[in-house]
Amino acid sequence: MNIYLAGPDVFLPDAVDIGKRKAAICARHDVSGFYPLDNAVDLKANDASLAIFKGNEAMMDAADAVIANLTPFRGPGADAGTVYELGYMAGRGKLLFAYSNDPAVYVERVRRFGPVTKSTDGRLTDQDGLTVEDFALPDNLMMIHALDLHGARLVTPRQAPADLWHDLTAFEACVVLAAARANGKTS
Amino acid sequence: MNIYLAGPDVFLPDAVDIGKRKAAICARHDVSGFYPLDNAVDLKANDASLAIFKGNEAMMDAADAVIANLTPFRGPGADAGTVYELGYMAGRGKLLFAYSNDPAVYVERVRRFGPVTKSTDGRLTDQDGLTVEDFALPDNLMMIHALDLHGARLVTPRQAPADLWHDLTAFEACVVLAAARANGKTS
Repeated sequence: MNIYLAGPDVFLPDAVDIGKRKAAICARHDVSGFYPLDNAVDLKANDASLAIFKGNEAMMDAADAVIANLTPFRGPGADAGTVYELGYMAGRGKLLFAYSNDPAVYVERVRRFGPVTKSTDGRLTDQDGLTVEDFALPDNLMMIHALDLHGARLVTPRQAPADLWHDLTAFEACVVLAAARANGKTS
Repeated sequence: MNIYLAGPDVFLPDAVDIGKRKAAICARHDVSGFYPLDNAVDLKANDASLAIFKGNEAMMDAADAVIANLTPFRGPGADAGTVYELGYMAGRGKLLFAYSNDPAVYVERVRRFGPVTKSTDGRLTDQDGLTVEDFALPDNLMMIHALDLHGARLVTPRQAPADLWHDLTAFEACVVLAAARANGKTS
């Protein structure tokens, strides 16, 4: 089984290293991890961003499944690029797995950035008056239920690990789920 | 042509009304707009979020194209639910259109939330040391180039309109692009 490793890990200072660690965990469970930075791209070229896109899309097309890192990135929810890729893989009918190292529900996450209050019409709203999804889910329902229906439930730790970006326990749990599926076991 | 109308518009106080305005614009251009809130969901039911997911997925499957509102939502980038849907439609091979009422490039958007600096290893980073994409694009490259290759270029106004959430000029430009495609014209 070939697994596309989606996540904002590519934006970490040690982006290459974390990809190697993830690929090694995959190998240990007899599946293959495809990491975006495995594609050679000349970042100084004019069309660098397009080359990255094409490389990632080709990798996704060649993969049977995705493991997405949905740990909140630069705001209360998951990284947009990762979410796009999760959606793309869902649309292609691939198996979806994901984890978030932050187990907090979405309302709590939004509260870290400002007050969340009940509006006069009964909606839970942020400081801009925009509705805050209140289904006791960790992130937007489209991602969470896509996982439920097209792969496996979002994996979260009981408590956020000390190092949100380098603790790969929840990631490995996803690899185990994927490997079990590859071997035809229900999980 | 049936067009799925994706966007955080569903989180506005006047979410139903803006959906009606969007559908009316579609009708004026002889295409049909499918708006998530057209699905009847009992929000008090235990499985309300799952019912919303299933309704949205069925609507997307029945649509030929998507017009996604990628105006920044609760952070520097687009709403996660909308991005998931854009990815899903890309994966299903549907036509992609999108707009952002905020034309600023991503680096500028991130700067509104905190300093962006050059790290010692040459990366542009946010206050958490995470790389900030610096391709002079308005948002994550996966969305922007998906539009370039699977639909039409992201539509942005020259200047952000006074009302980011209710100005539908850029939305209507997307409808025009979609309608032209429906009629077999290149655009």
